[in-house]
Amino acid sequence: MNALFWIVPVCSVLALVFAWFFFKSMMKNPEGTPRMIEIAQYVREGAMAYLYRQYKVVGIVFLILLLILLLLAYLGVQNPFVPIAFLTGGFFSGLCGFLGMKTATYASARTTHGASQSLNKGLKVAFRSGAVMGLIVVGFGLLDIALWYWFLNSVVFTPEHMANGFHLLGLNFVHAGTTEAQKLVEITTTMLTFGMGASTQALFARVGGGIYTKAADVGADLVGKVEAGIPEDDPRNPATIADNVGDNVGDVAGMGADLYESYCGSILATAALGAALPAAALKVSGMQTEMAVIAPMLVAAIGIIFSILGIFMVRTKESATQKNLLNALLLGTGGSSVLILIAMAGMAYVGWLTWGVFGAVVIGLAAGVIIGQATEYFTSDEYKPTQGIAGQAQQGPATTIIDGIAVGMYSTWIPVVTIVLGIIGSFWSSGGFDHFAMGVYGIGFAAVGMLSTLGITLATDAFGPIADNAGGNAEMAELPKEVRERTDALDMLGNTTAATGKGFAIGSAALTAMALIAAYMEEVRLWFGKIAKAGDGFVRVGDFAFYNDVAPRVEEGVKAVQLSLASVKDFSAAYDITLFNPLFLGGLFAGSMMAFVFCAMTMKAVGRAAGAMVDEVRRQFREIKGILDGTGTPEYAKCVEISTRGAQREMLLPSLIAIIVPVAVGAFMGVAGVVGLLAGGLTSGFTLAVMLNNAGGAWDNAKKYIEKGNYGGKGSDAHKASVVGDTVGDPFKDTSGPSLNILIKLMTMVSVVMAGLTVTLSLM
Amino acid sequence: MNALFWIVPVCSVLALVFAWFFFKSMMKNPEGTPRMIEIAQYVREGAMAYLYRQYKVVGIVFLILLLILLLLAYLGVQNPFVPIAFLTGGFFSGLCGFLGMKTATYASARTTHGASQSLNKGLKVAFRSGAVMGLIVVGFGLLDIALWYWFLNSVVFTPEHMANGFHLLGLNFVHAGTTEAQKLVEITTTMLTFGMGASTQALFARVGGGIYTKAADVGADLVGKVEAGIPEDDPRNPATIADNVGDNVGDVAGMGADLYESYCGSILATAALGAALPAAALKVSGMQTEMAVIAPMLVAAIGIIFSILGIFMVRTKESATQKNLLNALLLGTGGSSVLILIAMAGMAYVGWLTWGVFGAVVIGLAAGVIIGQATEYFTSDEYKPTQGIAGQAQQGPATTIIDGIAVGMYSTWIPVVTIVLGIIGSFWSSGGFDHFAMGVYGIGFAAVGMLSTLGITLATDAFGPIADNAGGNAEMAELPKEVRERTDALDMLGNTTAATGKGFAIGSAALTAMALIAAYMEEVRLWFGKIAKAGDGFVRVGDFAFYNDVAPRVEEGVKAVQLSLASVKDFSAAYDITLFNPLFLGGLFAGSMMAFVFCAMTMKAVGRAAGAMVDEVRRQFREIKGILDGTGTPEYAKCVEISTRGAQREMLLPSLIAIIVPVAVGAFMGVAGVVGLLAGGLTSGFTLAVMLNNAGGAWDNAKKYIEKGNYGGKGSDAHKASVVGDTVGDPFKDTSGPSLNILIKLMTMVSVVMAGLTVTLSLM
Repeated sequence: MNALFWIVPVCSVLALVFAWFFFKSMMKNPEGTPRMIEIAQYVREGAMAYLYRQYKVVGIVFLILLLILLLLAYLGVQNPFVPIAFLTGGFFSGLCGFLGMKTATYASARTTHGASQSLNKGLKVAFRSGAVMGLIVVGFGLLDIALWYWFLNSVVFTPEHMANGFHLLGLNFVHAGTTEAQKLVEITTTMLTFGMGASTQALFARVGGGIYTKAADVGADLVGKVEAGIPEDDPRNPATIADNVGDNVGDVAGMGADLYESYCGSILATAALGAALPAAALKVSGMQTEMAVIAPMLVAAIGIIFSILGIFMVRTKESATQKNLLNALLLGTGGSSVLILIAMAGMAYVGWLTWGVFGAVVIGLAAGVIIGQATEYFTSDEYKPTQGIAGQAQQGPATTIIDGIAVGMYSTWIPVVTIVLGIIGSFWSSGGFDHFAMGVYGIGFAAVGMLSTLGITLATDAFGPIADNAGGNAEMAELPKEVRERTDALDMLGNTTAATGKGFAIGSAALTAMALIAAYMEEVRLWFGKIAKAGDGFVRVGDFAFYNDVAPRVEEGVKAVQLSLASVKDFSAAYDITLFNPLFLGGLFAGSMMAFVFCAMTMKAVGRAAGAMVDEVRRQFREIKGILDGTGTPEYAKCVEISTRGAQREMLLPSLIAIIVPVAVGAFMGVAGVVGLLAGGLTSGFTLAVMLNNAGGAWDNAKKYIEKGNYGGKGSDAHKASVVGDTVGDPFKDTSGPSLNILIKLMTMVSVVMAGLTVTLSLM
Repeated sequence: MNALFWIVPVCSVLALVFAWFFFKSMMKNPEGTPRMIEIAQYVREGAMAYLYRQYKVVGIVFLILLLILLLLAYLGVQNPFVPIAFLTGGFFSGLCGFLGMKTATYASARTTHGASQSLNKGLKVAFRSGAVMGLIVVGFGLLDIALWYWFLNSVVFTPEHMANGFHLLGLNFVHAGTTEAQKLVEITTTMLTFGMGASTQALFARVGGGIYTKAADVGADLVGKVEAGIPEDDPRNPATIADNVGDNVGDVAGMGADLYESYCGSILATAALGAALPAAALKVSGMQTEMAVIAPMLVAAIGIIFSILGIFMVRTKESATQKNLLNALLLGTGGSSVLILIAMAGMAYVGWLTWGVFGAVVIGLAAGVIIGQATEYFTSDEYKPTQGIAGQAQQGPATTIIDGIAVGMYSTWIPVVTIVLGIIGSFWSSGGFDHFAMGVYGIGFAAVGMLSTLGITLATDAFGPIADNAGGNAEMAELPKEVRERTDALDMLGNTTAATGKGFAIGSAALTAMALIAAYMEEVRLWFGKIAKAGDGFVRVGDFAFYNDVAPRVEEGVKAVQLSLASVKDFSAAYDITLFNPLFLGGLFAGSMMAFVFCAMTMKAVGRAAGAMVDEVRRQFREIKGILDGTGTPEYAKCVEISTRGAQREMLLPSLIAIIVPVAVGAFMGVAGVVGLLAGGLTSGFTLAVMLNNAGGAWDNAKKYIEKGNYGGKGSDAHKASVVGDTVGDPFKDTSGPSLNILIKLMTMVSVVMAGLTVTLSLM
């Protein structure tokens, strides 16, 4: 193993050490008055109760998937390490969610207390706890990668095992006669599959969290704010604790799991693409295969160091204004991005990377920034699109909705054009058509580059919901108005940095998915090579052999095996991943439909869960005496319970569909159908996600714009219309939109893991 | 020329003769009272004023496009017949719109008068005038095809011209040494391009008509119904004539142009695919090339005969109930479909077609019926989805909107799965992977089969808006309530048959687009063969030669020319229309985005045009004394004028983008990018169109369901919420959704016509 590899585990442990350090330093701050402590306690308990339930349901799903994967491994159509890798991916993702949420719920009252002293103190607490989340995610993600890489390299694929094979429990772990080049391909494709564990966990976190938070939000708003006329976060509202819990489970745990998955997925996919680089491409670029495999890990590791540096760079003077704070944050994120680019230029200079790949990363980073700025433009009330929606609100809810949807749809053009240019640009920069495999490797690296400073960008994302919760705490504990104003300022600050963060999240998801689809083809080639030993009329599947009486299929198997030795490009061309293969086109249609149907399901789910919450809040107002005059205590836990149960029940169907459909398409429509499904899901899903996110964001801010006193201000007809827009936008931007991100990746991951099965079935 | 061809012009003239006959028989009916005549006159004048303006704007666009096409023809990157073919396609489409609208506006008062006697009489007049529209469309469509086929065969590609070439005005019409096989390819690809004229005309008709009708509708509803509280179609409402004009320009002229284009497009694309069938495929199937070319025309011609028969089959006894009428209509459409299948089975039996192609047509027809039924299920108030939206309306407008969007998104699954199975099924039935080109030909034939009885299906579609207008006439002329009830019954009858019609329209659009994309590749192959004569360092473009100093590109040119002799499948595989070509993937993204951005633009356009109308109606109520008590006369013409101007101004930008983007993508991203764009536009656009159509339809009927007395009935809060849903749905289902149909086809047509330019640029 290349000695440079050891930088990877060292940096991942470093991230965890600093996470611990930031956690400790955050915990040193006092939590404030007993009332503040009590409220924080409620939220913490609610959040933990939610997580406990969530993990129980997810645990059952994982158990079933584990059994299926074991069965497939036993049948020989699955790498026997996959079931274990799947579990570790899911476990570490879940652990990040648990620790991140714990930190966030400990930090909220402390942030409130800090904000009661100064804006800067509040920021410091919130941002440091956001940093815990950021560093945990990158730390555990990279640690999992490092452990597997070391284990497979040093324990499994030893020279002895490679020469003689390695069998255990009747399973074939290492084939006899594995070459060095094959070894790296085997290792990276095996590791790739632990992404499926992370993806599955992420989908449940995003969908479940998204349903929870919006059910609680709608329940609190519709009955509390609109019917009972009490303000946001009022302690008399039974759903208010659930609402605050929702911010944690949706924005902290959900987003953390999402980015954990993108982070690991992009590194693993790029490593797999690196392992498959043909000799010619390596020769031209002057790189070595092993270096191409560990380069993405190295960049991520170095990114951790700069993220930590960046986190320390975020500091201002005690009397800082909001503008100072924003600049401090931008200095931290921007500074670490510049540093990682310098480091990568150094790597290119010494020949660990090509300059072309360096160019791809620059393009990837630029794409992330542009998408972030476009998000800001279309959703901030400082610009025309959102102001236009507010203007339309004067004519009633219908025109508000139409205009918001139109803005959302229109806003897709910049992100799509940017991603297209990003893909073509990074492909062209790193290899182009003359060195196709290098070009695809570069696309993967663009995603790795975008996510390399995730430690700090996630910190700037995650502190927003913490500040939001701190505001809730201030309101419920009836602290002075200025505290609430400061937490609101922090919340707004979080929204601004979150726009850029969102750009990176969705941009990297698209690039990661693209790299994963390419890696899928690698996996398919590998399986063709492994499975089909035709010619004698038999197709061998592991130790089983099925008689195959369809002669052309056998021939096809032989052809496929020959092709599996060719490049991905030749392979996919010859294996008919062309548009004129109706199976591919059918897959494209199916992928597009999956995005829409998945959205429909999550929206319906929010509707049903919110309906249950509305009924419960109404019941409490009716049955518990004295709630509204403050003499009776609402049953907060009951609302938390209802939101939790609703989310768990509703998240199952859409999540399972995301897992089942790629397998079914593979079984019935073969490899071409799967690739079509993934491409259709990626392109339609990306566009739809941008539309939903931006329409939702614009409605939200159009409402706030009116509340600032425009077009009649609060209570006017325009305001009422804008509230309708905001309510419609809630599931758009907080449930369906973000979940699409993961749908795209999970479908790809499932396809990668199930490649062996698909290939086997396609040869039968 | 095969003698069977002469059936085609004969049947097309037959269609026109019967159209004339039905028109005359409709005109024999009396128009009713002077007041009825006066109102019909207003609507007729408004509709004609609109058409006049529309054609003026479209005329200018056509003139510019003509000049561009002439320039390209002069440069040799365009077939010199294309500019003329483009014009005839546009001219006949426009003529159909003009005559159809004339008929519809003559028929409305006559339908009212008929309905004042009996339901059956009303149906007869409305249906016969719908039949005029249907027969005009198929008659002129097929006549244009027949004329061109005869002209190119008998005048242009004479044996002498083919041997020695044919030059005129410095343009190269026929290359010397053209073989028989090349001749048919040249003829069919030339004819294919007249579809672009029809497409361009259709897009303007759909977008302009859609904007017009919704601007008038929203203006009439928001100010008249909601603010002034007067009923629908009340003569005191200044926008009411514009609203009735809108039904004609949107539903009659817009839909007619849409289907005219699908009809011609599917026949022409299938003929082009037939001309390109490789010898091996023909040998296996026992078909001949010329027969493969004229077979789709023949099926369409025979379809005309059965359509006319079907129209005569629609008759019931004088005292017919609505159910009798529906059965009569179903007998007509179903009967002609069964007859066409029997005729095609006969053609397969005598060997003019293969049984596989026959199977493809059966599959296509079944797909159309299933999509129609699914549309009915998701949008009719007899089923759960629409009733569910009505139920959600009790909780306010926000939940109504969310549920409607969710229903629309969810409803995409049946149409998409059906289309996927339809494409794979018709491909597999007619050829499958072993006879790839035959399979693609079968997909085209499935579309031809679906549209072969368009004469009668369009009649059942077009009589709905005529009945709608008749109702408006009855209301404004203050006829007895029972007359209005009868016209409403006819309108509802039209809605039911229209659901099936919509299924055929969108299903055939998808299949046609698929066939067109395949035909595009044929066109590209042809141009590669024509243009690239590399090897001497020059790339020849017509009579011009550009020095080409990029050696690899020249090699690529040579390779491409060699490949152009191969099959489409090999060509597209080798020419890199694979997913892993980033240009293709980038095109997919761009196509998906185009669907969304185009929708955004048309929605915004409706908003702006409706805003102008609202202002005008308010102004008239304010300034013209005595409007509301019936003593003052509103300025109807002013509203017609405003809607017309708004539609003309707003339709330009989205329409031009649909034309410019494919050319730009071709210039910058080459053939692979264009194919990606078309595939992305097709898959995303289809899904999005289904979503918009069904959400809009479901909201509309949810409102009607509440108005029937459910959930509090008219005037309740639920009703108000459902009105919001209906208003949001209007541009969904009447502007953006239907326009997407044409966007998909027009982008493909533009690509086909510009193939020469794209190929030339890609070799430079």
